[in-house]
Amino acid sequence: MTAPLEPWRVLDSRDAYDAEPWLKIRIETLELPDGRRVEFHQVDQQDFIIIFAETADGRALLLRQYKHGARRVSLTFPAGAVDSGEDPLDAAKRELLEETGYVSDEWIGFGDYVMQGNQRGCVAHMFQARGCRKVAEADSGDLEEMRLELLTREELVAAAANGEFAIISSLCMLTLALQPELARALGRPVG
Amino acid sequence: MTAPLEPWRVLDSRDAYDAEPWLKIRIETLELPDGRRVEFHQVDQQDFIIIFAETADGRALLLRQYKHGARRVSLTFPAGAVDSGEDPLDAAKRELLEETGYVSDEWIGFGDYVMQGNQRGCVAHMFQARGCRKVAEADSGDLEEMRLELLTREELVAAAANGEFAIISSLCMLTLALQPELARALGRPVG
Repeated sequence: MTAPLEPWRVLDSRDAYDAEPWLKIRIETLELPDGRRVEFHQVDQQDFIIIFAETADGRALLLRQYKHGARRVSLTFPAGAVDSGEDPLDAAKRELLEETGYVSDEWIGFGDYVMQGNQRGCVAHMFQARGCRKVAEADSGDLEEMRLELLTREELVAAAANGEFAIISSLCMLTLALQPELARALGRPVG
Repeated sequence: MTAPLEPWRVLDSRDAYDAEPWLKIRIETLELPDGRRVEFHQVDQQDFIIIFAETADGRALLLRQYKHGARRVSLTFPAGAVDSGEDPLDAAKRELLEETGYVSDEWIGFGDYVMQGNQRGCVAHMFQARGCRKVAEADSGDLEEMRLELLTREELVAAAANGEFAIISSLCMLTLALQPELARALGRPVG
């Protein structure tokens, strides 16, 4: 029988750069299972939610906006930071309403994934919202000018082929939601 | 006709924290299309490649390892940093050999995606390698103890359902490679 893979032990953490809530850099001193000690930078960013939201007639809610991280215009799914102390599902409901003016009564959770395997960054909470309906005008309060587009499955695939998804979280949301086996395997009703 | 979405202009960039090559923090002064000026933190991390590598009999090459960013053991696809000045495809071939001992003569590129829509982080270059064959013993030189596992499609889906993928780049690689329409739409032979 193979021995289990052991976690690394955190011996020390010291702050290196603090621009909270946006960003904090820490240096951790870690002990590996074989006894070696190493220093690792850890990047603390804000956890976020991202939503594959679709209407009853099967159109997905996409936002087209300039995203400075990508240095270009990209299609993105509704997404946003989880406020301190906020439940991720509550954040998803809030962001969906703010960014699109839509609400849903049928939410699926696809799980939580860290952005960086070494430096962590933050956690992405991935959701699907079905049967979305418009109840208000969008009012995101974000810096970006966002344009809401309701796209069919065929239009989503064509947009991806055309390079209109620039950011990995939106690409992952798209590929997961459109891969039925994995969507079923990972999806859990969450309210 | 709708006006195009305008990019933000970078008026200034100043270094805030430097731990290159691992990490650099900059503060950019940006001008929005409406004339407002804002400051944005930018995180410069190392670009990386990630590979859905499969053998001629359709088994994917996975690594099981403790990943400190996730604080737990995770399945990951072969991946690694692109060295300074290195071509991403060359980095992919190098990392595949180092981490698994396998090589491939049939490479597909799925495109490049930024990790963070606001703070950028780095770019993930996503590849598929077909018909992989073992030519050497793995010798990654990484800190992590890695265990190579060759998984069928059914085993990949079961592992995902069991929460064994902790990191978004590996989840995205999995869902993209297993979604035939999107894999076809995004894939380009690259050598």
